[in-house]
Amino acid sequence: MVLIGTGNVAWHLGNALSKAGIDVVQVFGRRPERAKALATQLQSTPISDFNNLAEDADFYLVCVSDAAIAEVGRKLQNVRGIVAHTSGSVRMDALSKNENRGVFYPLQTFTAGVPVDFNNVPLLCEGNSTQTEAALMALAFELSTKVFAISSDQREKLHVAAVFANNFTNHLFAQAHRICEANKIPFSVLHPLILETARKATETNPEESQTGPAKRGDAVTIEKHLNQLTDPNLHELYLLLTKSIQKNV
Amino acid sequence: MVLIGTGNVAWHLGNALSKAGIDVVQVFGRRPERAKALATQLQSTPISDFNNLAEDADFYLVCVSDAAIAEVGRKLQNVRGIVAHTSGSVRMDALSKNENRGVFYPLQTFTAGVPVDFNNVPLLCEGNSTQTEAALMALAFELSTKVFAISSDQREKLHVAAVFANNFTNHLFAQAHRICEANKIPFSVLHPLILETARKATETNPEESQTGPAKRGDAVTIEKHLNQLTDPNLHELYLLLTKSIQKNV
Repeated sequence: MVLIGTGNVAWHLGNALSKAGIDVVQVFGRRPERAKALATQLQSTPISDFNNLAEDADFYLVCVSDAAIAEVGRKLQNVRGIVAHTSGSVRMDALSKNENRGVFYPLQTFTAGVPVDFNNVPLLCEGNSTQTEAALMALAFELSTKVFAISSDQREKLHVAAVFANNFTNHLFAQAHRICEANKIPFSVLHPLILETARKATETNPEESQTGPAKRGDAVTIEKHLNQLTDPNLHELYLLLTKSIQKNV
Repeated sequence: MVLIGTGNVAWHLGNALSKAGIDVVQVFGRRPERAKALATQLQSTPISDFNNLAEDADFYLVCVSDAAIAEVGRKLQNVRGIVAHTSGSVRMDALSKNENRGVFYPLQTFTAGVPVDFNNVPLLCEGNSTQTEAALMALAFELSTKVFAISSDQREKLHVAAVFANNFTNHLFAQAHRICEANKIPFSVLHPLILETARKATETNPEESQTGPAKRGDAVTIEKHLNQLTDPNLHELYLLLTKSIQKNV
């Protein structure tokens, strides 16, 4: 196993692989000091030049920015092992130069330096052949109990869904935080509600458990809330989200 | 203690009070069968006529719909005990006919029939005098460790914040669910992400932990996502939320 990249995903995946007893023989990083830092942690060998690449590894996990994936694939076109990228939004065919190619996508939000229990991280696999896909899934099962075969088409849609479920909801939490701060209310008052909202969404179909003034068609409360939202951006968000809930009623 | 109402909040609050050893002497419900059902559960006496009201109770907790609070307050204008409503969006002065009035607002999303650990439910109290507020807070501490004094003005703002943190985020989870279903992706793939997003929001300022294409200014991914959202409603939500995140960058 060779790990390409030294960013957040490489750090989390590398640590999970190492913890699962999988031998990471090399860590590639363009910047030698970063390659060295991660390699040391994983008891691996750092490299910063593709000429020094081990050519007989079983897997090359490409944990680089989306824009760099195709280029890294070209650098690895002579290897026989499986070259898999780890991105949610890039199609498998970005690695079209690689004979055995695939995707190994951990669907979770990672915080730099905070270890994650990979056992519970969904790993979404795709391969350009049955064997390659099976090999990636077998690797995934070494790390996690949640392993899924997902096509490039599905992964593209899933990435949009994840933006709604993660980035956009976080932004709404941030707006709630701003409202609390502006009114000297401790944000911790909302913590149990936030956690329970998420828990509920994982136990039922969230469409069915929708509540609130928009869902009830409670025009008096909606009007009262809109009058309070003097920030035009918050006002617009409230209006559109209310409209959208009412479309789905 | 007299409980007025037999809905979701009355059910949850009544059970929590009873479990904490607080004597609920009467349960009022307009519909006798509902009053009886809840009263039986709480080892209390059901009433459906305000003429039968115990006039010497220490608290009258009004758990009725927002629109009915003022009317119930008028029915209780002769009692000396504290009359408190339990609504997030109604001002204390809806009970202006009551000498000792207040608010006792449990800030949580309740599911019918699913008991909640009240220990962890924020209880937001307000009273029209120092003594009344102190009495409501003392009652709250019997049920929960999270007790806050919050004015009517603050509670109105907090209610808007809760709509963002609960109703609107749930709607975004529902949209993610719809995208998954339309593409034959199990929604459970997103469960760990949803739970981690909420957990993170309670451990940091969510404004600071914002990630994703909008935050990064990743125009290529944003364009790709928008092209995939053929549903005009989803398209509009994606655009506005992206714009809103970029305003806050």
